[in-house]
Amino acid sequence: MDIVSENRSFGGVQGVYTHDSNTCGCEMTFAVYLPPQAEEGPVPVLWYLSGLTCTHENAMTKAGLQEHAAMHGLAVVFPDTSPRGEGVANDEAYDVGQGAGFYVNATRSPWRPHYRMYDYILNELRDVVTAEFKVDGRHGITGHSMGGHGALTLAMRNPDQFDSVSAFAPIGNPTKSDWGRKQFSAYLGDDEASWADHDATMLLEDKGWKGDILVDQGGADQFLDLLRPDALAEMLARRRQAGTFRMQKGYDHSYFFVNSFAGDHVAWHADRLY
Amino acid sequence: MDIVSENRSFGGVQGVYTHDSNTCGCEMTFAVYLPPQAEEGPVPVLWYLSGLTCTHENAMTKAGLQEHAAMHGLAVVFPDTSPRGEGVANDEAYDVGQGAGFYVNATRSPWRPHYRMYDYILNELRDVVTAEFKVDGRHGITGHSMGGHGALTLAMRNPDQFDSVSAFAPIGNPTKSDWGRKQFSAYLGDDEASWADHDATMLLEDKGWKGDILVDQGGADQFLDLLRPDALAEMLARRRQAGTFRMQKGYDHSYFFVNSFAGDHVAWHADRLY
Repeated sequence: MDIVSENRSFGGVQGVYTHDSNTCGCEMTFAVYLPPQAEEGPVPVLWYLSGLTCTHENAMTKAGLQEHAAMHGLAVVFPDTSPRGEGVANDEAYDVGQGAGFYVNATRSPWRPHYRMYDYILNELRDVVTAEFKVDGRHGITGHSMGGHGALTLAMRNPDQFDSVSAFAPIGNPTKSDWGRKQFSAYLGDDEASWADHDATMLLEDKGWKGDILVDQGGADQFLDLLRPDALAEMLARRRQAGTFRMQKGYDHSYFFVNSFAGDHVAWHADRLY
Repeated sequence: MDIVSENRSFGGVQGVYTHDSNTCGCEMTFAVYLPPQAEEGPVPVLWYLSGLTCTHENAMTKAGLQEHAAMHGLAVVFPDTSPRGEGVANDEAYDVGQGAGFYVNATRSPWRPHYRMYDYILNELRDVVTAEFKVDGRHGITGHSMGGHGALTLAMRNPDQFDSVSAFAPIGNPTKSDWGRKQFSAYLGDDEASWADHDATMLLEDKGWKGDILVDQGGADQFLDLLRPDALAEMLARRRQAGTFRMQKGYDHSYFFVNSFAGDHVAWHADRLY
């Protein structure tokens, strides 16, 4: 692992790092915020998964998570959203290929060799972060848009590895959306049965979540028809899943929405991880 | 004035606007954060002046000021750092020309026609903001680096227009620094007597400030020799100027430093404006 940069932030350290990923078969960049409490001993981890077109950097600079993580004593990990590099398949569209990994393990050409963000986040990067930073085994996960989809699906499929989950404007029902069908078809093939493991609404119906779930959604979000929060909220209620779905009047899909509620989400995770 | 964008943020509105500036002779872009309290009636204004290479956008997205402004009921204005456009003089260097207005009124060619950021901020943009937004006559000013220099010099020269002042890692003594001598020579000419009005340390000695001043400086700032905080701090003490100078161990010159202390600065201004 190489250090790209480290900056003091709210008494802790905001770092950016690279490492050679076996899972993705390329160099990967990620960021970690370590709060001041990590100087005393290992702290719990909050994973933040970003949305389409994002890198490790968007949330690191714009979500305002560090202030709250420092207050509550959580590390925050900001992974990239896909493999990258010259040898990595790509597409001219913003919503397939680099910057759009969708947190799945691709099984179809040309994506299969590198597009393994599901395993990468769940296993390899978790091992790297655990080995290199003062963190412990308590992990929560959140994310925005495509990253909210990733957070919900990774958590529900792996309740032994996560203790808390939340999401900002997640893609809630991707098997019924152009943010989902297009990508699952490319990465996983046309057998829609293989898509169900990556649809938060379907996972909620099938498995649910051991704890409670927090979802914030902006009421003025310009992508409501693609995100399908109505399907997710309906399933939350129908399944009697413990949780909170908040429709936040006037907020859109931007980081001005995410950072407005970043404090609530960090506190939510801290309550459940400590 | 035209609206470029408006996003809900912490219960208020973060907007970006353009207008035709008579002072600068070009279209200018600026951002305004209006807190939720502005719905009830006019609120005080905090000006945030940015540093070299910045636009209205850097602090708006990375400084984390909105959360604190919403808590305390302050509007925040984020001006650009220079005139811009095809007809506006420029230089290949990052520290002269577009993105580097230094908050002076240029008197020398080729800068004189457009580079009038001192008058622009102090008069024209203040009038626009006062006319277009629910703000009142209570104004505070802060800024980072070149913008910290701007905040300190505008405030000390215009105590009737500002009620509070602070700065993040300001260029504290530009007449003795390559961040200052080069630009003042270009914009104002070689008569160094004309530079004194734009040097915070010299203004502190000559005029001082009617209230108290807050300055934060990162101890690991990579530009300490250009910023000269030692000269500013020494003059603060020598003049017995009411104020607080904080050397913040481990922090560098980045927005990770600025946003770590944004809450303190907003609270400082709110205490003095309300």
